[in-house]
Amino acid sequence: MLALMMDRALNLPSILEYAAAYHGDREVVTRTVEGPIHRYGYKDALVRAKQMANALIDMGVKPGDRVATLAWSTHRHFELYYAVSGIGAILHTINPRLHPDQIAWVANHAEDSVLMFDISFGELVSELAPKLATVKTFVAMTDRAHLPPEAPAGTLVYEELIAAHSPEFVWPELDERQASGLCYTSGTTGNPKGVLYGHRSTVLHAMALVQPDAFDLSARDTVLPCAQMYHANAWCTPYAAPLVGAKLVLPGRQLDGPSICELAVAEQASFLLGVPTIWVGVLDHLDQTGQRLTCVRNVAIGGSAPTAALMRRVEDQLGATVRQIWGMTETSPMGVINTALPAHAGEDEDAAYARKLKQGRGLWGVEMRIMGDDGTVQPRDGASVGALQVRGPWVSSAYFKNEGAEVFLDDGWFDTGDIATIDPEGYLRLTDRAKDVIKSGGEWISTLDLEDAVSSHPAVAMAAAIGVPHPKWDERPLLLVVLRPGHTAEPEALKAHVAERVAKWWTPDEVRIVAELPIGPTGKVLKRELRD
Amino acid sequence: MLALMMDRALNLPSILEYAAAYHGDREVVTRTVEGPIHRYGYKDALVRAKQMANALIDMGVKPGDRVATLAWSTHRHFELYYAVSGIGAILHTINPRLHPDQIAWVANHAEDSVLMFDISFGELVSELAPKLATVKTFVAMTDRAHLPPEAPAGTLVYEELIAAHSPEFVWPELDERQASGLCYTSGTTGNPKGVLYGHRSTVLHAMALVQPDAFDLSARDTVLPCAQMYHANAWCTPYAAPLVGAKLVLPGRQLDGPSICELAVAEQASFLLGVPTIWVGVLDHLDQTGQRLTCVRNVAIGGSAPTAALMRRVEDQLGATVRQIWGMTETSPMGVINTALPAHAGEDEDAAYARKLKQGRGLWGVEMRIMGDDGTVQPRDGASVGALQVRGPWVSSAYFKNEGAEVFLDDGWFDTGDIATIDPEGYLRLTDRAKDVIKSGGEWISTLDLEDAVSSHPAVAMAAAIGVPHPKWDERPLLLVVLRPGHTAEPEALKAHVAERVAKWWTPDEVRIVAELPIGPTGKVLKRELRD
Repeated sequence: MLALMMDRALNLPSILEYAAAYHGDREVVTRTVEGPIHRYGYKDALVRAKQMANALIDMGVKPGDRVATLAWSTHRHFELYYAVSGIGAILHTINPRLHPDQIAWVANHAEDSVLMFDISFGELVSELAPKLATVKTFVAMTDRAHLPPEAPAGTLVYEELIAAHSPEFVWPELDERQASGLCYTSGTTGNPKGVLYGHRSTVLHAMALVQPDAFDLSARDTVLPCAQMYHANAWCTPYAAPLVGAKLVLPGRQLDGPSICELAVAEQASFLLGVPTIWVGVLDHLDQTGQRLTCVRNVAIGGSAPTAALMRRVEDQLGATVRQIWGMTETSPMGVINTALPAHAGEDEDAAYARKLKQGRGLWGVEMRIMGDDGTVQPRDGASVGALQVRGPWVSSAYFKNEGAEVFLDDGWFDTGDIATIDPEGYLRLTDRAKDVIKSGGEWISTLDLEDAVSSHPAVAMAAAIGVPHPKWDERPLLLVVLRPGHTAEPEALKAHVAERVAKWWTPDEVRIVAELPIGPTGKVLKRELRD
Repeated sequence: MLALMMDRALNLPSILEYAAAYHGDREVVTRTVEGPIHRYGYKDALVRAKQMANALIDMGVKPGDRVATLAWSTHRHFELYYAVSGIGAILHTINPRLHPDQIAWVANHAEDSVLMFDISFGELVSELAPKLATVKTFVAMTDRAHLPPEAPAGTLVYEELIAAHSPEFVWPELDERQASGLCYTSGTTGNPKGVLYGHRSTVLHAMALVQPDAFDLSARDTVLPCAQMYHANAWCTPYAAPLVGAKLVLPGRQLDGPSICELAVAEQASFLLGVPTIWVGVLDHLDQTGQRLTCVRNVAIGGSAPTAALMRRVEDQLGATVRQIWGMTETSPMGVINTALPAHAGEDEDAAYARKLKQGRGLWGVEMRIMGDDGTVQPRDGASVGALQVRGPWVSSAYFKNEGAEVFLDDGWFDTGDIATIDPEGYLRLTDRAKDVIKSGGEWISTLDLEDAVSSHPAVAMAAAIGVPHPKWDERPLLLVVLRPGHTAEPEALKAHVAERVAKWWTPDEVRIVAELPIGPTGKVLKRELRD
C-alpha cells in the first residue's frame, strides 16, 4: 500500500525558489574575476538564473545535454548551477587546473555542447577550441567590455545573454533521479572518471550538510567556501546555503590568505571550509598581521587530512572550532565529519586533538564498512585495518560511460580506495590512500601518522611521507618537509621529533627539507610526483 | 539522462540501524506504564524491534496490513514504530482519549488486524473488543505479571512475544513510497480522517526537523517529547532523535508538570516540546518548587498557538529559548517554526515576543500560499488575510479511503483550514482556524489576538475567545478566562486590559471567568463545545 503523501520531486530549482521567496534580500557576495566585489540577493539570482535558462534553451540546449564551465567561484557560476540543472541539462564543472590535454579529453568524453568560461581562461579556451569535438557554443562569463580578445570567434557574452532574455520561466517538472551535474575526478590509473550527480542525491546531501553535526548551517550563517565550485561543487555549499537562507560569499579565483581574510572580515563569515593548504596561507597571513577572525564559528577542513598542529593553529588563531571532514567527489562529497559525542564532554586538549585527528564519525545516510584482505568485514575496534567501502543515496553507483567499473562492487558498495579503521564510537580513521601505502617488512606504515608527527614541530609548515624501495624491507619511509617562513630546523632534529611520537620501526630513514611540495589541481600534495 | 548515484530507498529501519551501529549505547529512557524507569541503548532497541518483527510475521501480519496501538510514549511503542513499519505493515496510532465509539470507528475504518495496548487500557479494550470487526489479535504491551485481568481472552503478552522470537531479521527492501503509519485527525465536520504517512515522507521530515532552524538536534542532545506518540508521532521525535543519535526520553502516560520536571532534570533533557497546556502545568510546578530547568536549551510549542505571556514564562523559568511551531497531522507535523533571521539580531524583548507570537517562518520543504476569498494568491504583506494552503513532500495528498477529498485541491495544494497572513520576512501568522473565525459586521476579529491580549494579564492562566450570535453585528466576541491558582481578577478589569491592547470594536462584549476550559484529546481547547 502506497502512502498518501504528496509526490513532490526533490529538485534543485526548488532550493533557489525557496531562497528567493523567503530570503530574497539575503546576499550572495562575489569577488569577481574582473576585480570588484559584486553583491545581490537570492531573489536577484533567481531572476538571472531564469533569464539564463531561457538563453540556454534558445541556444539549443536540451535535457540531458552537458554544459561545461571553466570558472571560479562567482555569482555567474552560481546562476549556472541552477539554470543548467533546472532545465534538465547537466552542468559539467571542469577543473581549469588540469593539463589542457586533460581538459580537452574530459570535454570530449562528456560531449559538452556549450563551454562557459571566465575571462582568465580566454587564452586557454582559444588553445583548447580546435580540440573540442562537440562544443558548438562558447560563452564568456562577463560583459562585452571584458570579453577577452583571444576568445574564439563567435563567443557569446554572458551579460548580453542575460539582458536579451526574459525572466519569465517555469522550471520543467523533473524526475528527481535525473542527472544534474558532472564532475571528473582524477584516478590513480587511467583517465579521469566522471561522477554524475542527480537532483535527488544533491538535495538529500544538502539537507544532511546543514544539520548541527555536519556544517551546522542556519539562516543566521554566512558561508565562505574556500574551495572552488569546480571542486566537488565547493562541497555543495551553493546548494546548502540557499536551502537555509544563509548568506553565501564566493571568493572568485583568489584563495590566498590575504584575500580570504579580507573577505571573511568584510562579510563577517561564520563558516569557512577548505583543504589544509588553504589554511596554511590564512594562518601565515594572520601571523603577519596579528589579526584574528573572530566572526568565524566553524571551519571544515577536508580534501586531505589536516595535521593536529594545523587544526590547533586554526582553532587558536581563528577562535573557531575545526570539523575535519572526509569525502570524495563520489560521495557528493560528505562521507563523515568530526564532531564530538556526549562521551567527549570535558575532554582535555590532547584528547580533543586525538579525536579531531580522526576523519570523522558516521552520520545517517552514508553507510561504511572496512573490508579486510581476506574479504571479511572487519570489526569496528579502531585497530582492524582494511579497505573503506561506502554506500548511500548520495554515493556514486557508476562513473559516466561506465569507466573504472571495478570500484563499484557487485553487492552495491563503492570501494573508496582508502585504507582505514573505524573505532567503537564510529569514528573513521584513514591510515592511507591505497595507492600511498608504505608497506615495510610486510606491515603497513601510516603516512598520515608520520606527517602528523613531524607537523607538531613548530618549524614545520607541511610534510609528505612516501615509500622508497628498500632491498630488505621492500619499502622504507622518506619524509619530505617544508619549513614555515622564518623558521629553521635540522633534518636530524625533525627525525628525532618523529621518533618520539611513532613506533620505532616507523621512524623514517631520512627526513629531507624541501622548498615546496607539488600541489595538485585540488590542493592535495601529489605523492606520485614525489615518488617519481 | 539519469544520474549515476546509488538508488537507496529512504526507509525507517535505516534510522534505527544507524542509531544502533553508531550510537548503540545512547539511551532510550522510559517512564513505563507499569511504573519504574526503563532504560536501554539503541542497539538493544534494534534487537527487540527485530524480535517483534519476527513476531508480527508469525502473527500473520502482511505488508500493507494495519497494526493499531492504544499506547503511551514508551520504549515498546518505540520498538513498534520500527518493527511494524519495517516489515512493510502500517502502524496505526490510535488516540486513546477519543470517545470509545470513535476508537471503534477508526479501528474498523482502518481495518486493523492487530491491536497492541498498554495496561491502562485493559478495560477500554475489553469494552471495545466486541465492536472491532477486523481485529484478530490483541497484544498487551507488558509482561505476564502485569497483564490486565479484563483483557480480552487470548490476549498475547508483548514480552513473551519478544522472548519467543529470534533477533535475526533482515528488513525487506521497501519502496520508499510505501505507507508506514496511519494517524486519524478529528475533522470539524464528519468522521475522523486518516493521514497515511510513508517511509520517504517521514525520513525527509525527520531530516528537516534536525536542522538548526527547526529542532536543532545533534548527537549531544537529549530529547523529551511531551507529546504522546499517538499525536502526530510525538512530532516525529522517535525518528529524528535516533537519526542523529540523540538520547530519547519517553514520558509514558504522565505529562503533568511534576512528572515532566522530574524526568527532565534526572535525564538532563536539552530539548522539550509540547502543546501550550503542558507548559502551564510545568510552570505551575516550577513556581511552587522554585526549581529551574537549566539543562533545557530549546522548547518547541505548537499544536495550538501559545500566548506571548506563556512564552515569556517558559523562557524566564526554564532559561530556554521558545520556538513556536505550526503544523498539523497532515504536515507530519512540521509546517513552519519560529527562529530569528539575521535582521532580528539585537531585537529588544518586546520586538522578540512580537516575532515569536507568529507561528514561524517557512523552511525549505513546505511551500505556502494565502488564498483570498476571490481565489487569488494574496501578497506576503503581513496584512492580507486568506486561507492557508501548503504543499511539500511531507504533506498529505489525500485521506485514507479518500474521505474529505475537498481539502485536497485540484492544483495539488492542501487547504489547511487555517486563516492566516504571511509577512514580507516569510513568517506565518494564523488569525484563526476557519471554523473559529468571528465575523462581526462583515470584518474578521482574530480570536488568537484576543486570547493573547487577555493572557498578558498576570492573573490569567488560559483563555478562549468565541463568537456569539448578535442581532446587529452577526457575531460578537465572548472571552472565557481561567485564572491562575491563587489569583483573582474582576471581569471588567480584564475587559479593560484587553481594550487597551486591541482595536476598539474587537473588545469583547463580555469577559466571563470560568473554572476550566474543555480540553480535547490532543490538548487543544474545544471551542465547538464552548459554543454549544
